[in-house]
Amino acid sequence: MSDIRVEAASASYTVHVDRNLLASIAERTAPLARKISQVFIVTSPEIDRLWGAPVRNGFETLGKRVTTLLIPAGESHKRMTTIERLLEELAQHGADRDTLLVALGGGVLGDMTGFLAAIWMRGVPFIQVPTTLLSQVDSSVGGKTGANLAAGKNLVGAFYHPLAVFADLDTLSTLPPRELRAGLQESVKAGVIRYPQLFAFMEQNAEAIRNGELSVLQPVIEDSIRMKAEVVEADERESGLRMILNFGHTVGHAIEAATGYKQLLHGEAIGWGMIAAVRLAQSRNLLDEATATRITKLVHAFGPLPPFEAEAQHLVTLTGSDKKKRSGTLSFILPTSIGTVDIVRDVTEAELLTAVETMLAEMRTANAVTA
Amino acid sequence: MSDIRVEAASASYTVHVDRNLLASIAERTAPLARKISQVFIVTSPEIDRLWGAPVRNGFETLGKRVTTLLIPAGESHKRMTTIERLLEELAQHGADRDTLLVALGGGVLGDMTGFLAAIWMRGVPFIQVPTTLLSQVDSSVGGKTGANLAAGKNLVGAFYHPLAVFADLDTLSTLPPRELRAGLQESVKAGVIRYPQLFAFMEQNAEAIRNGELSVLQPVIEDSIRMKAEVVEADERESGLRMILNFGHTVGHAIEAATGYKQLLHGEAIGWGMIAAVRLAQSRNLLDEATATRITKLVHAFGPLPPFEAEAQHLVTLTGSDKKKRSGTLSFILPTSIGTVDIVRDVTEAELLTAVETMLAEMRTANAVTA
Repeated sequence: MSDIRVEAASASYTVHVDRNLLASIAERTAPLARKISQVFIVTSPEIDRLWGAPVRNGFETLGKRVTTLLIPAGESHKRMTTIERLLEELAQHGADRDTLLVALGGGVLGDMTGFLAAIWMRGVPFIQVPTTLLSQVDSSVGGKTGANLAAGKNLVGAFYHPLAVFADLDTLSTLPPRELRAGLQESVKAGVIRYPQLFAFMEQNAEAIRNGELSVLQPVIEDSIRMKAEVVEADERESGLRMILNFGHTVGHAIEAATGYKQLLHGEAIGWGMIAAVRLAQSRNLLDEATATRITKLVHAFGPLPPFEAEAQHLVTLTGSDKKKRSGTLSFILPTSIGTVDIVRDVTEAELLTAVETMLAEMRTANAVTA
Repeated sequence: MSDIRVEAASASYTVHVDRNLLASIAERTAPLARKISQVFIVTSPEIDRLWGAPVRNGFETLGKRVTTLLIPAGESHKRMTTIERLLEELAQHGADRDTLLVALGGGVLGDMTGFLAAIWMRGVPFIQVPTTLLSQVDSSVGGKTGANLAAGKNLVGAFYHPLAVFADLDTLSTLPPRELRAGLQESVKAGVIRYPQLFAFMEQNAEAIRNGELSVLQPVIEDSIRMKAEVVEADERESGLRMILNFGHTVGHAIEAATGYKQLLHGEAIGWGMIAAVRLAQSRNLLDEATATRITKLVHAFGPLPPFEAEAQHLVTLTGSDKKKRSGTLSFILPTSIGTVDIVRDVTEAELLTAVETMLAEMRTANAVTA
């Protein structure tokens, strides 16, 4: 097992990565809270059925009242109306300022539960229990919480850290293989932007990682978390370094928006986004062809990335509404080698259009071959 | 004029108290923000008509795009649906992370705009421009922001500080006299819990203060803000000392709830709540009769406190759902002299019932006399 510390500006906490963690969460959490009056586990019906019992039993063994609040799975429920409903449910169950919230599930559940904890009575403690690869390697660490608006993803939220994160590797056993592979794109990202040794390890063990073999998957998860912890420690509020975590995400978000957040998993859209960013980096002579090929090959190793229908110009337009755009300039994170990136702030629409067109052409060619 | 500094754990800022401040807000604010991409003034139609122009003109003179977002006046709009609507409006107007929000109005507007600033893109800067006495002496300072749920007041929110507070005394000239008097109850509170010299000054100048004469009103406002700043500096998150600010508020909130938040102004309900707390303090022999009389007399000096219909037992029951109740024990802030209070944590329902009955009996007697 590994315990990875996150020492952010506003909070410090441990990310526990191990098998068979769920039953011991309660006793590990109790010493971290000043006092726990009662516990609310926020989860989906599916995850509750698979993994709810050991978490609940642990807190009940400590004599705590435990209530389970259910959110249907899926991005479409990550909205303020759901948040408001959950707030009213907390009130109806007599939640107070010493209430502990437990986020049990994937990234949507973690983001919403963290936001709920941030704003219920101006802030109560919570813990993250991520049960998907994506949430274990990415969204459960770093303190970003929130919900979507009609106008866009994650436009509302708070920086708010958990007391601890418990990434139980056993929960990955029930994850659909496609979700596992998609989540691995964030680990590819971690390798490209900062951890060349992780990238090389993933190249060497792609097949076994893809198959979910824990002996190789566990070090990938741990390294991805370490990378993210380092970046968040250096720049909690995304005023500088943390922006590198957006590698692949500007075009990725545009693809998600263009396909209604339904057709592709987040990691799959990020996979395509990384390919577009690689092409943009090449067009600026920031990245040599051999390295570009290593990156796109590793992205595809955790595919297949599903093809989708979208006009290049439409995707470019959609990046304009991405919240990473600051006051008119279009910023991109572009790789310069395996492990290093540049933050490029003067990308023109025309340049981006060319890179997106190249990515789409590659997608159509690959699709024609496999079709 | 006075500039009062608030040095809280998570932020430091200045509360400016003066006449003729509105036109200079923009130039005083600009140096405080890293960058201001555009400005949103959140206000009510009435306040916008009276005081919107000089604030807007100031920012436009600096070349900023200014958009006014309107919320109808009143507590009934302090809800998550309003927050969600405003968030969508921010998105539609292209707000980004360098957007400045301006809260122009009373406490409801300040609380909601602060919360909006706390959660739009996980936090953007905002300033408070309180235009009511209540918001100048109390709600604009201290970082409490939020909204109401169906289940209760201020159950959702964030601790989030403004870049600065601008309390323009001129805006009080258009405040209905009843609102001015009600707001002064928070200054009475400030005197009772911590500032005996403020209390004595208010006793000596009650008539002129009540009439809104700035020569005496201004020092009352400034002292009230100083008192609050001191308390917030010592205990930003209400884990200890800040609880003393709740003097009069536990029963006051119950009265507001029992009367549907419509019949009494907040300050008026707090006035009755302070009287109930005084009776409770006397029944515990914490407060002598002469001091109790000084307090109730000063409360009534800023009346008349409107009578209302409520059963004592119903009010007691409603205090049980007050969020200041921690895990079963009922805590009260009780005065022990002018300027000192005890935090009493073991108040029984029976004791409270007696104190509330005494307060209601006094209300009915006074009402019978004046009727």
